[in-house]
Amino acid sequence: MPNTYQRIVLASRPSGAVSPDNFRLEEAPVPELADGQVLVRNHYLSLDPYMRGRMDEGKSYASPQPLGEVMIGGTVGEVEASKNPKFQVGDKVVGMFGWQEIGVSDGSGLQKVDTTHIPLSAYLGSVGMPGVTAWYGLNKIIEPKSGETVVVSAASGAVGSVVGQLAKLKGCRAVGIAGGKEKCDYVVNELGFDACIDYKAAADSKALYMMLKEATPDGVDGYFENVGGEILDVVLSRMNAFGRIAVCGMIAGYDGQPLPMKNPRMILVSRLKIEGFIVSEHMDVWPQALSELGNGVAQGKIKFRESVAQGLASAPEAFMGLLKGKNFGKQLVKLV
Amino acid sequence: MPNTYQRIVLASRPSGAVSPDNFRLEEAPVPELADGQVLVRNHYLSLDPYMRGRMDEGKSYASPQPLGEVMIGGTVGEVEASKNPKFQVGDKVVGMFGWQEIGVSDGSGLQKVDTTHIPLSAYLGSVGMPGVTAWYGLNKIIEPKSGETVVVSAASGAVGSVVGQLAKLKGCRAVGIAGGKEKCDYVVNELGFDACIDYKAAADSKALYMMLKEATPDGVDGYFENVGGEILDVVLSRMNAFGRIAVCGMIAGYDGQPLPMKNPRMILVSRLKIEGFIVSEHMDVWPQALSELGNGVAQGKIKFRESVAQGLASAPEAFMGLLKGKNFGKQLVKLV
Repeated sequence: MPNTYQRIVLASRPSGAVSPDNFRLEEAPVPELADGQVLVRNHYLSLDPYMRGRMDEGKSYASPQPLGEVMIGGTVGEVEASKNPKFQVGDKVVGMFGWQEIGVSDGSGLQKVDTTHIPLSAYLGSVGMPGVTAWYGLNKIIEPKSGETVVVSAASGAVGSVVGQLAKLKGCRAVGIAGGKEKCDYVVNELGFDACIDYKAAADSKALYMMLKEATPDGVDGYFENVGGEILDVVLSRMNAFGRIAVCGMIAGYDGQPLPMKNPRMILVSRLKIEGFIVSEHMDVWPQALSELGNGVAQGKIKFRESVAQGLASAPEAFMGLLKGKNFGKQLVKLV
Repeated sequence: MPNTYQRIVLASRPSGAVSPDNFRLEEAPVPELADGQVLVRNHYLSLDPYMRGRMDEGKSYASPQPLGEVMIGGTVGEVEASKNPKFQVGDKVVGMFGWQEIGVSDGSGLQKVDTTHIPLSAYLGSVGMPGVTAWYGLNKIIEPKSGETVVVSAASGAVGSVVGQLAKLKGCRAVGIAGGKEKCDYVVNELGFDACIDYKAAADSKALYMMLKEATPDGVDGYFENVGGEILDVVLSRMNAFGRIAVCGMIAGYDGQPLPMKNPRMILVSRLKIEGFIVSEHMDVWPQALSELGNGVAQGKIKFRESVAQGLASAPEAFMGLLKGKNFGKQLVKLV
């Protein structure tokens, strides 16, 4: 067992797009365990769009990531040493150790998980925070009825893929929006969505609208928003009366560029409900959501795909790719 | 009793702002009553912003006002002749007879009202559709708790004035936004709002934001939107986490000019709920709302002000003024 480990800290805040020099890779000594503590070897680090918001100083829903500290992030790993009776060496655990190869904890915030029927990495995706995000927005905001049409952007991603599959399980028409033919084919053929729109194949907003119209012959009852910008404008104009929009992310505007909503009058015209949410503020639903998602994955009813970058040093590059939609499915970094 | 009456029909659809030649004043013979019918002499016609939407052909929440037919509108009046046993000559009634001096009905859609403690005209305002609109948006969408801050635009108007007074009765801080010192003084001194912002006195959005900040030291928990545009942008940036916005109107965009929302990311950042509504789609709440509003007016707890134009021929001019905020309080046309 090496007596040092690697970690990545926030070196500077981005002005506009994230760049590699916003991060700094550090080497640190593995600490001695105190009584009650447990040492975890992280196997996977989760990369998620919310991290972009934390890198800024401005007003957001969470306090900014402090400079010089380990980047925030969800991790799964294995207990390597334990002075805590609740954890044994070899236990698989989910935690929030951030961008680093190991983590030390007194056990709080650490969750033991069962990998018999669910792969460890899925606890960072469909059976983790992204899955619960999809579950919450769909069930608590969109509340779709069987036969309704649900649209989700970033449909091949960690959140979007679950939204559409859960919508299908509820008897809805599920329509994805994704970037590129390959992602769209996957969304329809592998995940079982009814249709998927390749926004990159649309020459302009009008063309995108026509594609959406064709894919949603009965209009749109629920929209799960991950991207914002032009796509939101187009979907807004296709919403049915009393439609619901769950705003989970607006990745298109994360670098600070203006991202106006062109025609908010549609909120009134179509009597829409639009609601923004952060899944970590709704911990009460997590047990139910995780149980349903875990069953879905174990039974093969919820499928997923992962983009896995190798080694901690590749995390900044993989994260920048994620923000540009270069990943395909849940973006992970394999640490061991 | 004259054997003709006047009525105003929609002569053409506006391109941009409404103009007088969109309307045509007609003279028509008073019809003979058939069995079961009742003839009402309209005393007041209500002018409301929603009428602007009906004048357009485009997609809106209601079917467009047909060309050549009497303009839609709420009325209060007195039964002048009756061949319907449910109505007696002299009964005061509320109806939807539109822009005309009389109305003939089989009694459906006609409501007898008691003017002992509530003036007849109030049934077109605080104890009518505008009052219920305020009641619904406040109680069913904003759902304010005592101690919270509620902001309403067009605060001296028929809807806005009720929103703020109801909010005060619930123990909230009520802050209005209105155009001009006179309206603001009225909102604070007569209606009892805690503060009112004169948006016309703000040099730009930043100045407006500073005025709003001063008037809402604890931020904004609920916003009742009647106007849209720049004011919505400014209030959005002042919303507290989990704030609620009831979208009742966006009068600033009724002539078709683009009215973008500058920073929809605030929906996510502040986890807002934004909901558009049309009060006529929530008839189930009307009895409760009207009963509370009627008590409030009868007991002097809900005050109101009216702008009264004289004679049917003045309706187009008064309506155009309403769309520009020239009215002060509920805009009515006195027909008798």
